[in-house]
Amino acid sequence: MKLANMLGERFRETPADCQIASQIFMIRGGYMKQVANGIYTLLMPAKRITRKIENIMREEMDAIDGQEVMFPVVMPGDLWRESGRFDAIGSELLRMKDRGGNDMVLGMTHEEASVHAVRGTPKAEGNFPFMIYQIQTKFRDEPRARGGLIRVREFTMKDAYSFHTSQECLEKYYERAYHAYERIYARCGVPEVVAVKSDSGMMGGKVSHEFMLLTDIGEDTIITCPECGYRSNMEAADCVVVNEKRGEEELTKVATPEQKTIEDVCNFLGCEPKHMCKAVVYQENLTDKYVIVFVRGDLEVNETKLRNHLGCEIHPATEITAESGIVAGFIGPVGITKNATVLFDKSLEGTDNLVCGANEEGYHMTGFSIERDAKVDSFCDVAKTYQGAICPVCGKPVISVSRGIEVGNIFQLGTKYSHSMGLQFQKKDGSFEDVIMGCYGIGVGRLCASVCEVRHDDYGPIWPMTIAPWQVHLCAMRADKPEVREAADKLYEDLKKAGVEVIYDDRPVSAGVMFSDADLLGVPVRVIVSPKTLARGAVEVSARDKSFRQDANVETAVAEVKGIVDKMLAELNNVD
Amino acid sequence: MKLANMLGERFRETPADCQIASQIFMIRGGYMKQVANGIYTLLMPAKRITRKIENIMREEMDAIDGQEVMFPVVMPGDLWRESGRFDAIGSELLRMKDRGGNDMVLGMTHEEASVHAVRGTPKAEGNFPFMIYQIQTKFRDEPRARGGLIRVREFTMKDAYSFHTSQECLEKYYERAYHAYERIYARCGVPEVVAVKSDSGMMGGKVSHEFMLLTDIGEDTIITCPECGYRSNMEAADCVVVNEKRGEEELTKVATPEQKTIEDVCNFLGCEPKHMCKAVVYQENLTDKYVIVFVRGDLEVNETKLRNHLGCEIHPATEITAESGIVAGFIGPVGITKNATVLFDKSLEGTDNLVCGANEEGYHMTGFSIERDAKVDSFCDVAKTYQGAICPVCGKPVISVSRGIEVGNIFQLGTKYSHSMGLQFQKKDGSFEDVIMGCYGIGVGRLCASVCEVRHDDYGPIWPMTIAPWQVHLCAMRADKPEVREAADKLYEDLKKAGVEVIYDDRPVSAGVMFSDADLLGVPVRVIVSPKTLARGAVEVSARDKSFRQDANVETAVAEVKGIVDKMLAELNNVD
Repeated sequence: MKLANMLGERFRETPADCQIASQIFMIRGGYMKQVANGIYTLLMPAKRITRKIENIMREEMDAIDGQEVMFPVVMPGDLWRESGRFDAIGSELLRMKDRGGNDMVLGMTHEEASVHAVRGTPKAEGNFPFMIYQIQTKFRDEPRARGGLIRVREFTMKDAYSFHTSQECLEKYYERAYHAYERIYARCGVPEVVAVKSDSGMMGGKVSHEFMLLTDIGEDTIITCPECGYRSNMEAADCVVVNEKRGEEELTKVATPEQKTIEDVCNFLGCEPKHMCKAVVYQENLTDKYVIVFVRGDLEVNETKLRNHLGCEIHPATEITAESGIVAGFIGPVGITKNATVLFDKSLEGTDNLVCGANEEGYHMTGFSIERDAKVDSFCDVAKTYQGAICPVCGKPVISVSRGIEVGNIFQLGTKYSHSMGLQFQKKDGSFEDVIMGCYGIGVGRLCASVCEVRHDDYGPIWPMTIAPWQVHLCAMRADKPEVREAADKLYEDLKKAGVEVIYDDRPVSAGVMFSDADLLGVPVRVIVSPKTLARGAVEVSARDKSFRQDANVETAVAEVKGIVDKMLAELNNVD
Repeated sequence: MKLANMLGERFRETPADCQIASQIFMIRGGYMKQVANGIYTLLMPAKRITRKIENIMREEMDAIDGQEVMFPVVMPGDLWRESGRFDAIGSELLRMKDRGGNDMVLGMTHEEASVHAVRGTPKAEGNFPFMIYQIQTKFRDEPRARGGLIRVREFTMKDAYSFHTSQECLEKYYERAYHAYERIYARCGVPEVVAVKSDSGMMGGKVSHEFMLLTDIGEDTIITCPECGYRSNMEAADCVVVNEKRGEEELTKVATPEQKTIEDVCNFLGCEPKHMCKAVVYQENLTDKYVIVFVRGDLEVNETKLRNHLGCEIHPATEITAESGIVAGFIGPVGITKNATVLFDKSLEGTDNLVCGANEEGYHMTGFSIERDAKVDSFCDVAKTYQGAICPVCGKPVISVSRGIEVGNIFQLGTKYSHSMGLQFQKKDGSFEDVIMGCYGIGVGRLCASVCEVRHDDYGPIWPMTIAPWQVHLCAMRADKPEVREAADKLYEDLKKAGVEVIYDDRPVSAGVMFSDADLLGVPVRVIVSPKTLARGAVEVSARDKSFRQDANVETAVAEVKGIVDKMLAELNNVD
C-alpha cells in the first residue's frame, strides 16, 4: 500500500474531545472516524488490525473445536421474550418495529440465537459437547460511550456458546476456553492480561471470569491479593473485615442538630467513621419499596452485590417520603420503620459501642452494640472491599485495588437459557434434561484499543507484529532522486513478493512529517532508504520500539527484513 | 471436522415452505436455520462457503487498489437526511430511535457513510482516485423475503465506493471494477454470469449494470439480443417497434356497451390488440394527480421507465373519481380530460386506423390515426419490450426474454451524494468541484445460493472447489472394523497435515445415509475407505459431479487427492 493513496489524514494536534492514548492516536493517525456517539467507521489501518485480531481469535476457537456460525444482528423480540430478557434489559437493548409491526431487537449478545440454532430436533447425550462461535457486529445502546473504541455502541465481537450434558463437562470445557483466551491475549501482544472472578450480571449463571488488562484508564476496579494471587472484579469481591471489641457502653440518645452526614457527626461527637453504623437507602426499581442497608461507617455499599442479594434492580433513593417513617440523616437500627427492607452488612458483625441514627430528627445514639441492641438474625455481604482489606482466600490484610479494562469474559451459564427456551437432551434412559451452557466473549475493537493503551510511546502506538496494520513501514526519503526512487521501488516490490506486508511512503515530504506519520501508524519494523544510506550501500532497518537500529546491505535487505518479521511473529505466536 | 460433531441436521423430506433448489438443499443439508422471515442463522457449512466467497471478493477488490474499511450498521438518520434518502426511501429502510431519542437507521447500503468517511479535510486533485470497500451486514426490510438466501432481509454484502475528479477517470475505474466482478464470478464457479444494462433506481446516477445469473427461478427479466449481444434488464430496456401503415379511415364513434377491456373490445369489434390504442391510468404518489399512458394495445407499461420519465413515484390508479373526467374503460386520446398528465408511448408513433376509447361510457372510436387525430407533440418510451421485439442496437427483430438472478451491480453515481453532502475536491487553480463517485455491490449469501441454483443435481449442491465448505469428504464405511478405522483416521490426519480441508464421516450409519448426507454437503471430492477398497489396497476417489471415479493406492492417496484438489482450484482461480 502506498501511503500517498490511503484514505485518512494524520495530524499533530490532539482533538479536543479525546482523553486517552488509544483514542488520541487512533484519531490522529487516521485509523477511524466517528459517525455518531459511540459509532465509528474503521479506516484501513484499524480494519487491518481488527481483521488480524479476528483471525487469531478464529484460529484459537477452531483449536478448541469451535464451529464458526453467523447469527443475525436483527432478531425478533419474541425470541428475547422467551428468555425473559426482552423485558429485563433496559434501554441498552435497541428495540424497533419492522414493516410488519413486529418487535425486533439489535443483538447485544446471542444466547437466545444460539439456543434457537441448537434446539428443534431431539439430541442424544452422545451429540454433546460442542461449541459454536461467531465474529460479528453487535449493538449496545451505552449511555456513556467514551474513549474511542474502548466503550462504543456498535462493535465487533467474537462470541462463543458451548453446550453440555453435565456440569463436569462444562467445567472441563470452560478450562479449555480459559486457556484459549490466554493464548489469544498473548498472541495479540498483551500476555499480561489477567483473569478475575466476576459478577455474572444480566448473563445469568454462577461462575464467571473477566479478563483484565490493568491500566489506570480502566473503568473496572480490580481486587488482587499479592500474597495468594486472589483476583476479583470489585463487583464480585467479598469484603472481609475484622472488628476489635471496644467495650460495651450504655445506649444513649444524644442531640445532634443538623448533623446529617458521617463527617458531620464524627466532627460533632469526636468519633471515627469506622465506629459509626451508616445507613444507605435504596428503592427497588419496580415496586419503589425502600431498602435500608446498614454498613460500617467507613465503607461503601457494593450495589452489584446488593442487587444480587435482593434479586432485583435497585436505585439510590433520591427522595424519601414522610409516610415511610424513614428520617433521612438520622436513620438507625433501633426502632427502625417496618415499611422497609432492612439489611445489615457483615462489616457490622461483632461491633460494639457505635454511633448510629436515632430515627428522630436531630438525634443520634451512642453506645450502640449490634448484637445487644439490634438482634440481627443474619448479616449479608454487600460492602465494597478496600485497599488493605482482608483477603477472603488467604486471610491476610493485603488486598490491593487497581484499575483495569475488561477485554473478555467467560461465563458458566448453567441452564438459564436452555430451561426457559426449551433446549433439552435425551439421556440414555430416554428421559430429558436441560442442556448446560457456557458462553465466551471478546470485543475486537476494544482489544485493539487496549493493546494501544499499554503499547505506545509519546509519538504513537507500538503495535505487536501479529496485529500490526502492516509489518514493515518503508520510507523513501528524497524519492525525487532517481537512485532513491529506484532502490525503494524495488525494495517495495521485492518485499511484497516475499510475502511481507509493506506500507510505502514515497511522498515528497520532510523527514519530520514522514517519521511522525510512521510513528502514528506504529508499524513494528521501519526501513529507510535515503541518499545517505545508499551512499554506504545500505538501507536502515529499525524497530518502532527502539530495540534495534541497524544497516542492512541493499542486496540482502529483503531476506534480512523478512527474517526479522518472521522472528517477531514467532515470538508472539509460540505460546504455552 | 468430524461430521458426527457438527451442528445441523440433514434430512430427506422437502420442507413445506421451500420452493427453489438452493433453499431446499441448504435447509435439508443443515446449512442454515430461519430465525424470522428473511433472517437466518448460518451454520458451519454456509458460513464456510460465504467466508470463502468473501475472501475471493477481498482479493479481487485489493487487486483493483481497494482499501478495506468498515462502516457502521447503525447510522444516524441525520446523515441520511443530508442525501435526502431518509425521506425518499420507504419502509425497506428500518428506522428506530436510540436511547437519546435520535433517529437511527440500519444500513441497507453505505453511500452516505462513504461520503462521511471521505469528506472533512480539503483534498487535492492529486489525492484521487481511490476506492474503499467493506464486507458487512446490511438490512433491508423486504416486503417479500423468499427463497432462502436469494431474497432476505438481513444479508452480508461487499460494497465498494470509488471517488474521482473527472467522468473519464470514473469510467476507467468502472471498467476495472466490471472486470473484477467478472473475475469474482468466474472464481466462484459461475463464469456464465452476464452484465446487463440496468435502471439506477434509488441509487441515482446514469450508467449502471447488473450482473445476472440466468435461471428460471430469477426474479428479474432479462432482455438479450442473440444477434449483437445487447443485454439489458427489462426495467431499463428500450422498446422498439415498427408499425406498418394500414391505410387511414374516417374517425367514427361506435357503441360498445359494457366492452371495457382490450379483449372485450377486440372480440366485439373483431380487431387485433395491436390495432388498439390502450390507456393505462396511474396516480403520482404524493399529489394523487392522474397520469394516463397511451400504449399500443398488445403492449404493457414499463413502470420503471414511466417513473424515471416522470421523475416521481407512481402507483396504478385503483379508483377513478367522476370529477376527474376520466371514463374508465372508455378512455381515448380524442377529447381527453385536461385534468391529467397524458403520455403517448413510442409504440403508437406512426399508427393509423386504430380503435380507442371515446371518453364516453359505452362508446369507442374506430379509424383513429395518431398524427391526424391526436396531434401528439412527442412520444416517450415507457413500454415493456417483448419476445421478438426489435433490438435497439442492431435493429433486428430478435429480442429474447429470459429470467435471471441479480448477483451484483455497479453504478456510475456521478455527483448525487457528493453534491448533496458537500464532498468536493480542490482543483489546481484553487477552485472547488463536486467529487464524482461510483459504487459496486455484491450480496454474499445471494451469490452462494445462486451458485447452488445452477450447480446441483437431484441429490444436492455441487459446490465449485473454490467455495466448497470443505475440499474433501472422507467416508469411513464400517469404521467399527479396526482396519477401516486405522486407515481412515490416518488419512484424515495426513490430509489435514497436507493442508486439505476435510469433513470426515466415521459414523456407524448405513452407506445410504452416509452418501445422501455427502450429496447434501456437495463437497467436490469424495474419498471412501471401506473393507472392500482396503481389500484391494485402495481407497476410492470420486467427484461430486461424477466426472471421475477411480482407485488410489492407500500409500499415495494423500498426494493424489491433494493434486486433484489443487488442480480444481487452479482451474477456477486462473482467470483473467
